[in-house]
Amino acid sequence: MDQRKASNAKRGGAPTSADVARLAGVSQATISLVLNGRASKVRISEETRKRVISAAAQLGYTPNHAARSLRQRSTKIITFVLPTLENPYYSDIVSAAQIAAQQHGYAVSVIPARTKPGEFHALSLLQGAAFDGIVVAGRENCAAPELLQLAARGVAVVALQERSPDPSIYSVSVDLEAGGYLATRHLIELGHRRIAHVMEELPRPDTWRDRVDGYRRALAEAGLPLDPSLVVITENSMAGGCKAIEQLLLDRQRPTAAFMYNDQMAVGALHALRTHGLRVPDDFAVVGFDGLAMGQFTAPPLTTIDHPRRDIGRIVIETLIGAIEKGSLEVKQHLLPVKLLVRESCGGLEAPNQKP
Amino acid sequence: MDQRKASNAKRGGAPTSADVARLAGVSQATISLVLNGRASKVRISEETRKRVISAAAQLGYTPNHAARSLRQRSTKIITFVLPTLENPYYSDIVSAAQIAAQQHGYAVSVIPARTKPGEFHALSLLQGAAFDGIVVAGRENCAAPELLQLAARGVAVVALQERSPDPSIYSVSVDLEAGGYLATRHLIELGHRRIAHVMEELPRPDTWRDRVDGYRRALAEAGLPLDPSLVVITENSMAGGCKAIEQLLLDRQRPTAAFMYNDQMAVGALHALRTHGLRVPDDFAVVGFDGLAMGQFTAPPLTTIDHPRRDIGRIVIETLIGAIEKGSLEVKQHLLPVKLLVRESCGGLEAPNQKP
Repeated sequence: MDQRKASNAKRGGAPTSADVARLAGVSQATISLVLNGRASKVRISEETRKRVISAAAQLGYTPNHAARSLRQRSTKIITFVLPTLENPYYSDIVSAAQIAAQQHGYAVSVIPARTKPGEFHALSLLQGAAFDGIVVAGRENCAAPELLQLAARGVAVVALQERSPDPSIYSVSVDLEAGGYLATRHLIELGHRRIAHVMEELPRPDTWRDRVDGYRRALAEAGLPLDPSLVVITENSMAGGCKAIEQLLLDRQRPTAAFMYNDQMAVGALHALRTHGLRVPDDFAVVGFDGLAMGQFTAPPLTTIDHPRRDIGRIVIETLIGAIEKGSLEVKQHLLPVKLLVRESCGGLEAPNQKP
Repeated sequence: MDQRKASNAKRGGAPTSADVARLAGVSQATISLVLNGRASKVRISEETRKRVISAAAQLGYTPNHAARSLRQRSTKIITFVLPTLENPYYSDIVSAAQIAAQQHGYAVSVIPARTKPGEFHALSLLQGAAFDGIVVAGRENCAAPELLQLAARGVAVVALQERSPDPSIYSVSVDLEAGGYLATRHLIELGHRRIAHVMEELPRPDTWRDRVDGYRRALAEAGLPLDPSLVVITENSMAGGCKAIEQLLLDRQRPTAAFMYNDQMAVGALHALRTHGLRVPDDFAVVGFDGLAMGQFTAPPLTTIDHPRRDIGRIVIETLIGAIEKGSLEVKQHLLPVKLLVRESCGGLEAPNQKP
């Protein structure tokens, strides 16, 4: 051990950053940069980084973030509250958000919060917790009173893919109604007349523009009736999509196409059709929603509505960091466009407008 | 506003829990329970919960978790550091962990950390951060010196699906070698002789028992040669699996079966085979690894090696909470069994031992 100077650790107190700097033979600034995870940003070598960490471990030195965050009122952490980790939809957004956050010196964490009432209230856990901003998705979470309280306390909040529950809360969404319209219109243009829509149960009466509104608009525009027996509510999963299609196939006036709530449900739909010996797209056409990578690998590859998930992640972070650092921003609500991504599950690639 | 007593807020100081209790007309204990997210555990009504939150918001009262965690040295938060959120494998584990954690009054958060060297060091962000335990997955993260430092500081650490880098660190893994053996032996029993293995690149030389070791054991046991041209390294994704199979199909002595690193890569494999007009399982058999839900919905449904993901999540939490609350546990390393899940992608359901 270094004997040159009496250290705080040797005097019996807790070791200090100066003690670690002496043992590692580097400056206190280097200690701070390494232990706060900023070594790679300022080109500190891997060898120095390891020496600092080893010295800190040897002395039992702890840079106390909890104390620091009380002092600085800044943690450089942005927390996502998501209803599920199971849908890759969110992982694409978080991944893009993480890249954008890193460029601004922020880190990202995720709290998975199931959103069925009474099951799990993630937001109540966040009261006073250590982060600078939160991104919240899921209807129950976005409607929680805790969200307003966080915003009132000055925490920067962005609602993701949900109507903002309060004008003071920022939101970043894609245009779900336009997506529903594009999906349904594509099927109509291919000659389909009985088009089903398989959707998730919406837990609160909602005037928000959702997929089903676009479905209605496209039908109305084409002069087609809205047959309520063709709108099926199911569980938001592959298995749910599978069950919904099986139900639709029992209909005496069987539909010839379905617009599915998301790509996961569409994977279940393709499976149900295959199991019943129906060929896609010849006997039955399917459109998904989201544009997940898996849609390239289904049998057949899935026509879907593509969301700009990378843009969503980036804009969420830019909005939050803007709000954190500038206090307030002009644009409160972002609504991003979607686009139709034509693959093989509708027959739209081969011969548009040829279907009877 | 309630005029009966002078509140701290009115005297100009920060509002206290007593001020909130007066305004909401409930006890301070109720305030504490609601604002710490424990209302549902003790049957506080939704109406009371909302009144408390509204009162706290009105007064601007903040239960300061950062201050509390300094005092109590306990945050009741367990953080998962995962290499990706894209593979549903981890979401199943986190979901089970969350249920187990809630039963013990803990919450779960996730830090997504890409594990390519130099890309993102999640662990360095955790130095001194506010949580009681961490679960860490991914080779780079598990080998990081920061992990040893956290353990040395007394943070409870569990390595997930990785050899523990230090005897003081707990680990929970499944028996990957046994999985590789079961998958390969199944293909051999069905009559296959040229069996490929498609794997992810292993970034460090490793004596750890992995899938490829089980693949080797099954081949050796059957007296089959190990042909290095049949072991293909690819990117860990659906697209990677697809490319690897396309490469294997160019082989003059084309294999008749492939054991894939995981179910995601297997989805890509099925797609490549379909694109090249090969029927599964008649022309080519595929076994996956992990037992993800999506394997039920592939064309054809996927034979795979099922992991006890719910058990993994539960045992990870029980181990961590045991370590946090008791200090040390007898069992340091858990190795859980896997099982072969036979569906249709190998032909093993219809006619075992009938293939030439």
